[in-house]
Amino acid sequence: MAGGISLHAVDVARGVPASGMLVELWCLTPERRQLAEGRLGVNGQLDHPSVSGVGITEGSYEALFHLGDYLRAQGGDSPFLEVVPFHFQLGDASQHVHLPMKFTPWGFSLFRGS
Amino acid sequence: MAGGISLHAVDVARGVPASGMLVELWCLTPERRQLAEGRLGVNGQLDHPSVSGVGITEGSYEALFHLGDYLRAQGGDSPFLEVVPFHFQLGDASQHVHLPMKFTPWGFSLFRGS
Amino acid sequence: MAGGISLHAVDVARGVPASGMLVELWCLTPERRQLAEGRLGVNGQLDHPSVSGVGITEGSYEALFHLGDYLRAQGGDSPFLEVVPFHFQLGDASQHVHLPMKFTPWGFSLFRGS
Amino acid sequence: MAGGISLHAVDVARGVPASGMLVELWCLTPERRQLAEGRLGVNGQLDHPSVSGVGITEGSYEALFHLGDYLRAQGGDSPFLEVVPFHFQLGDASQHVHLPMKFTPWGFSLFRGS
Repeated sequence: MAGGISLHAVDVARGVPASGMLVELWCLTPERRQLAEGRLGVNGQLDHPSVSGVGITEGSYEALFHLGDYLRAQGGDSPFLEVVPFHFQLGDASQHVHLPMKFTPWGFSLFRGS
Repeated sequence: MAGGISLHAVDVARGVPASGMLVELWCLTPERRQLAEGRLGVNGQLDHPSVSGVGITEGSYEALFHLGDYLRAQGGDSPFLEVVPFHFQLGDASQHVHLPMKFTPWGFSLFRGS
Repeated sequence: MAGGISLHAVDVARGVPASGMLVELWCLTPERRQLAEGRLGVNGQLDHPSVSGVGITEGSYEALFHLGDYLRAQGGDSPFLEVVPFHFQLGDASQHVHLPMKFTPWGFSLFRGS
Repeated sequence: MAGGISLHAVDVARGVPASGMLVELWCLTPERRQLAEGRLGVNGQLDHPSVSGVGITEGSYEALFHLGDYLRAQGGDSPFLEVVPFHFQLGDASQHVHLPMKFTPWGFSLFRGS
């Protein structure tokens, strides 16, 4: 896939995509502005034009994953994590950045995927 | 996706899919037999009929990722890992099992994906 | 710490050390033999002479983590993982190898620690 | 260990503790204030009174790991990550929070440890 940023979250405590989780994507340069906000689909991914590169330029980015709200909506609690930020740089806007978060109520793993 | 087992590996030390890595898929029940063997494509995934469920039934499985050979082929060495096994159960053959391994020469993360 | 192999497991779905989990350590070279077997302590670590290097030489090793039994003993089920193997090489027996597994019922992360 | 917050980072691309990495610990409530700043020791951990609970109360916290500077100091580059934030809640100040980050230039895993 050329260009774009895709947000993906999997609840690895329960073994399911984080369907319904609210996520946000912000560009931090030259000034902070929101590029996307929405809820993850049944496949755990955000469906948004930014995934295919619309509005994505070189710069610094912040993705926000609303874990606390998600976990409470599942009937659990979230004593450790609330909104989880992930900051990254995009130096070449023609490269796709896939962000597959694997999380539990006690932490997460997020390595740039493919 | 319905049914099937998909093998996927990303070299998160270098930030690239593990293109060319040899992988194997074995069913361990009722007796050990190989279902697939091949090299990961440029997207880091194995292209094989087992991905869409051909030959996949309920049972115990072993995936083998040849990390040592891959790392040496990249010009590095692999003092810690050689062939990495991952064992799992499949209780419902209509469910797809995605196995996205994120590895470095010093370990890996593998949570069932989506 | 000089020499030795330490096994450590944290249940990151529940946010607690995997106290009581059965683990095994095997040397695979020159022939397969068991070096240690026991249950993890309240800190999630195995207390055994092999941790400080007793019986540890250069070679190939297998650690086994009995996740399925652990999860069922906690009142849960384990449809995906049973006994989790981790294979590694030890080329310099004077170096300590710390193996901190972070797991859920759906996978795990294990990078050589410090 | 009772109380306190411990920061720990391991460079899992190279298989070594992140000795020399600059880290910071901030409490965000009731107003943002820095509790600790320093460089990780040879064991990859920050040696600071906050580890044993000095100055730690219930509230929201931010840990900052200066990955980009660390990677460049090792002679590498860091096109993806710069300063990595990790936000968490502490609801019971008598509980120790161990934060063992495993990172590469392309991401990280951080589950509350033990």
